[in-house]
Amino acid sequence: MNFLFISNADKRDAWRDAMLERFPGSGFYTYPDLDLDKSIIDYAIVWKPPTGELASYPNLKGILSLGAGVDGLLVDSELPRNVPLVRLVDRCLTEGMSEYVLYWALHHHRRFDVYGMWRQDKIWKNLRQIDTRDRKVGILGLGVLGGDAARKLKTFHFDVAGWSRTKKNIDGVTSYFGADQMAAFLARTEILVCLLPLTNDTRGIVDAKLLAGLPEDAVFINCARGDHVVDADLIRALDGGHIRHAVLDVFHTEPLPADNPFWTHPKVTVTQHMASLTVPTSASEWMAENIKLIEAGKPPLNTVDLNRGY
Amino acid sequence: MNFLFISNADKRDAWRDAMLERFPGSGFYTYPDLDLDKSIIDYAIVWKPPTGELASYPNLKGILSLGAGVDGLLVDSELPRNVPLVRLVDRCLTEGMSEYVLYWALHHHRRFDVYGMWRQDKIWKNLRQIDTRDRKVGILGLGVLGGDAARKLKTFHFDVAGWSRTKKNIDGVTSYFGADQMAAFLARTEILVCLLPLTNDTRGIVDAKLLAGLPEDAVFINCARGDHVVDADLIRALDGGHIRHAVLDVFHTEPLPADNPFWTHPKVTVTQHMASLTVPTSASEWMAENIKLIEAGKPPLNTVDLNRGY
Repeated sequence: MNFLFISNADKRDAWRDAMLERFPGSGFYTYPDLDLDKSIIDYAIVWKPPTGELASYPNLKGILSLGAGVDGLLVDSELPRNVPLVRLVDRCLTEGMSEYVLYWALHHHRRFDVYGMWRQDKIWKNLRQIDTRDRKVGILGLGVLGGDAARKLKTFHFDVAGWSRTKKNIDGVTSYFGADQMAAFLARTEILVCLLPLTNDTRGIVDAKLLAGLPEDAVFINCARGDHVVDADLIRALDGGHIRHAVLDVFHTEPLPADNPFWTHPKVTVTQHMASLTVPTSASEWMAENIKLIEAGKPPLNTVDLNRGY
Repeated sequence: MNFLFISNADKRDAWRDAMLERFPGSGFYTYPDLDLDKSIIDYAIVWKPPTGELASYPNLKGILSLGAGVDGLLVDSELPRNVPLVRLVDRCLTEGMSEYVLYWALHHHRRFDVYGMWRQDKIWKNLRQIDTRDRKVGILGLGVLGGDAARKLKTFHFDVAGWSRTKKNIDGVTSYFGADQMAAFLARTEILVCLLPLTNDTRGIVDAKLLAGLPEDAVFINCARGDHVVDADLIRALDGGHIRHAVLDVFHTEPLPADNPFWTHPKVTVTQHMASLTVPTSASEWMAENIKLIEAGKPPLNTVDLNRGY
């Protein structure tokens, strides 16, 4: 079996080691490779391939995304449509994302920001402790990542709701769905977490209108994609005081340029797209499972619906 | 029914409202009250009473602690030994403590301290993401609070162990117990959380020897009592580099005096004894339940063993 690896954001050597351990004796080739006979490639393991590149491998049996979101692949207008495109579902990636969400939800729920400022001035004071049952967290996107975060928030008894394209059933989590129910979802949400896939429908979804629909003093956490947010609208909502704070892990341009105002905005916490990382040792297990299904003539798990975009 | 309230750390009015709602028509008296006929008091709701004070109420049927720890009561050498002393178990207190433990465990597990420093310098960089299964958290004390924290850490798949006086059975949590097993418990613990009761056996337990038993680069979180720690030993272990960081919520003297070195030590995070607070509306439910048991001639729940000290 021969693998092609295309990514400048993932660790090539770690992936080669992980895949060759699972498929001993296979070939592992890295783009660009001018000497490569493209007809020998069976599976492409990719993140943001150059436009048209994947179309040039005539015997491709599967395209395996290195990320949970496939927006970096779908921008390739020549992406082969007859080859299954598989989204990554990585235990470590999912769990890491929930760690990030819980950490920042607890940070703002318990006001560690306020206690931290008091610490600077050696102020010894307490705030009233709020029961998590009275704290409303809302998750945009209740897929693999949003669903796991919702369940973990529930173990802390937060009042959790989610919004998604279609209705979801998660124990104890209120499911809002479709454009009609967005306003009701926003109106009850004090801490908003974005874990949506990036599609034509969700690009720029976090705009002035959406932010205005949140209650006064709401907190926004984005660990999906920078393109979900209209930055100027977010900054205006923060400066105007309607949104108390934003925690941003993803940006239109990454690495975030040094002159981007988010770095130093007093109401923004920037993290370095570290909310959750793909871990080759665990993620390769998922890829191996899907390759075995394809080799057995069966449909792989979590195939991307190219029309839906995720 | 007549209640006596003794505390300068709890909100008197909130407690009066909560207790009178549960026992309408009762009397609620606050120490000191020079006009009070002490023989009418049935139940004392207390935190750190003056020595001998409780002994002067001849018809006391129960002493209800305002804190989960009763060390502030047991220092009263004249504490009536024939009246049941009930430790507080408050849902909100327990859950708030677990929120604090999870927040700081995630903080150090995911190295938000490092990412925060990088943010100051606009550095865009990632650390390798560690699976929680490979992160060893150890809890000193597996009672109501330690047990709940252990269970919540397990939902994030941390490798959790606890140390206590006697063996405990919590699903998936390794139980070390007794002096003999302390060394083995410490040797495997990267993040140490103290949730012990303060007794003669545990006073000063976190000393140079205990800290030296932890692996290099360990993190220490204290949300029990300041007196569990030998401060000079902790500072030496931090300065020497063996302990990476300490998160301290409790101190020998509270409020923490402005000249205490913990406030500004670069390897210490001080919080203002806010890890978890007693919430009168939920805690009064526990008290009411115990009062009803005593009134019915039954033993109350979570009575303190005066010899054991908790």
